[in-house]
Amino acid sequence: MAKKPLILVSNDDGITAPGIHTLVKVMRKIGDVVVVAPDGPQSGMGHAITIGDTLRLDRSLIFPELEAYECSGTPADCVKIAKHHVLRDRKPDLVVSGINHGSNSSISVLYSGTMSAAIEAAIEGLPAIGFSLCDYGHDIDFSHTEKYVEMITRQALEFGIPHGVALNVNFPKKSDKAIAGVRVCRQARAKWEEEFDERQDPMGRSYFWLTGKFVNFDKGADTDEAALAQNYVSVVPCQFDMTASHAIVQLNNEWNLDPGVKPTEGSKTLESGHEEG
Amino acid sequence: MAKKPLILVSNDDGITAPGIHTLVKVMRKIGDVVVVAPDGPQSGMGHAITIGDTLRLDRSLIFPELEAYECSGTPADCVKIAKHHVLRDRKPDLVVSGINHGSNSSISVLYSGTMSAAIEAAIEGLPAIGFSLCDYGHDIDFSHTEKYVEMITRQALEFGIPHGVALNVNFPKKSDKAIAGVRVCRQARAKWEEEFDERQDPMGRSYFWLTGKFVNFDKGADTDEAALAQNYVSVVPCQFDMTASHAIVQLNNEWNLDPGVKPTEGSKTLESGHEEG
Repeated sequence: MAKKPLILVSNDDGITAPGIHTLVKVMRKIGDVVVVAPDGPQSGMGHAITIGDTLRLDRSLIFPELEAYECSGTPADCVKIAKHHVLRDRKPDLVVSGINHGSNSSISVLYSGTMSAAIEAAIEGLPAIGFSLCDYGHDIDFSHTEKYVEMITRQALEFGIPHGVALNVNFPKKSDKAIAGVRVCRQARAKWEEEFDERQDPMGRSYFWLTGKFVNFDKGADTDEAALAQNYVSVVPCQFDMTASHAIVQLNNEWNLDPGVKPTEGSKTLESGHEEG
Repeated sequence: MAKKPLILVSNDDGITAPGIHTLVKVMRKIGDVVVVAPDGPQSGMGHAITIGDTLRLDRSLIFPELEAYECSGTPADCVKIAKHHVLRDRKPDLVVSGINHGSNSSISVLYSGTMSAAIEAAIEGLPAIGFSLCDYGHDIDFSHTEKYVEMITRQALEFGIPHGVALNVNFPKKSDKAIAGVRVCRQARAKWEEEFDERQDPMGRSYFWLTGKFVNFDKGADTDEAALAQNYVSVVPCQFDMTASHAIVQLNNEWNLDPGVKPTEGSKTLESGHEEG
């Protein structure tokens, strides 16, 4: 590539998190880097955006050698303000998010702020990848991910990512075993079994901690969970069309959506006081 | 139905919003109602959940005749704490969310707190419907939706909703024209074109308002946008598997994910200082 690619970096753990520093380090080997990341932790924010409230955006001292901004909003806000304000005269060649401190495989993709940044970029028509490490905590070891982050990023730039798709890349926790390779997977069918830990505050009022354990219902060998369990890097291409196409036929055939509602009469009745049931 | 169905009601505009009061009114005609809703507005929260912070849950005086709770968390939190705490000994027959003050059609499903409550219920294996009205503001007229909310809810209870699917139901804004009927649709391909309105606060520091306009790229007659434009109620069955299956083959065929990375060597190199690149 003659001209260096422009790479936008964001995350959900905030601009001070070690994971984004690893990601920036790798991206600087590949292209010109602009960082727009939350000014504090935004884990579990899903695809939240800031509506009805203001956003702040300030130049950040955290990456003094780069064009970097910290934003008061969510990860999806960061990508929006990067695309439409910071980079309004430049088009990024790639948007990367992470490296998340914790897994975003399987159902966690829905709750993930890291992936919401990548999916927001895909909605904007930009190639995007979210990277996550299946290890929680602040001081975790990202070193084994770097080579794969670099390889996957270079291939995304060389071969492209299908339009409207963001890649959800998860890395196994660092261990004595070397990573076995990379597998393109589907999202495993799994969920979190929640438990709410009820406690009393010092004033005697109750509050709750959300806790839970991950339960995988999916024995498929082609899932992200199966890949990670075998020490592979999992790559799930994700889309933002949530239509359950298989269910359209079922609803059309099994439901009975028109009879019994005569729209004109219905409207009249409703306007006259909703008496009927 | 001999026994009345148990219906859990939530929303994202908060327990005081007129939309949830319309929804509760209709649901009380159909079944036994329990409300667990946010204690304040949670619009645009996407599938956010509360991690690393506590949750409050209090009995609410807003629906004095019902078992109702207000929760400090997001819509997804409300469904989780309803399922695993409030209703831990009872299984709801249906979870409904809304009626949202504003559209959740097309791409807005991703940003929607209303739909995140419904999708969270689907993840929990519960039949679920999110209802939204394509009209913004606090004091909007929901009266034309009631008959359709009731019909769709009764059919969901009678005919079922496919497992792992939540329905995204949107109503046209109230007008002189009667609603034309109900259509099962797919999610239109569209996006919000954002603009950030930059202003100065009284202290001279800049801040931003997220604004934008909705742009529909999708001319398909089978989309939710097409149905709503013709004054139909749109019903999109939504799933939480975000895998872009079509992209798996493409990535496997066009990318080159293994060569050049010899895992054992790679790990060694990375551990010895990441010199190569």
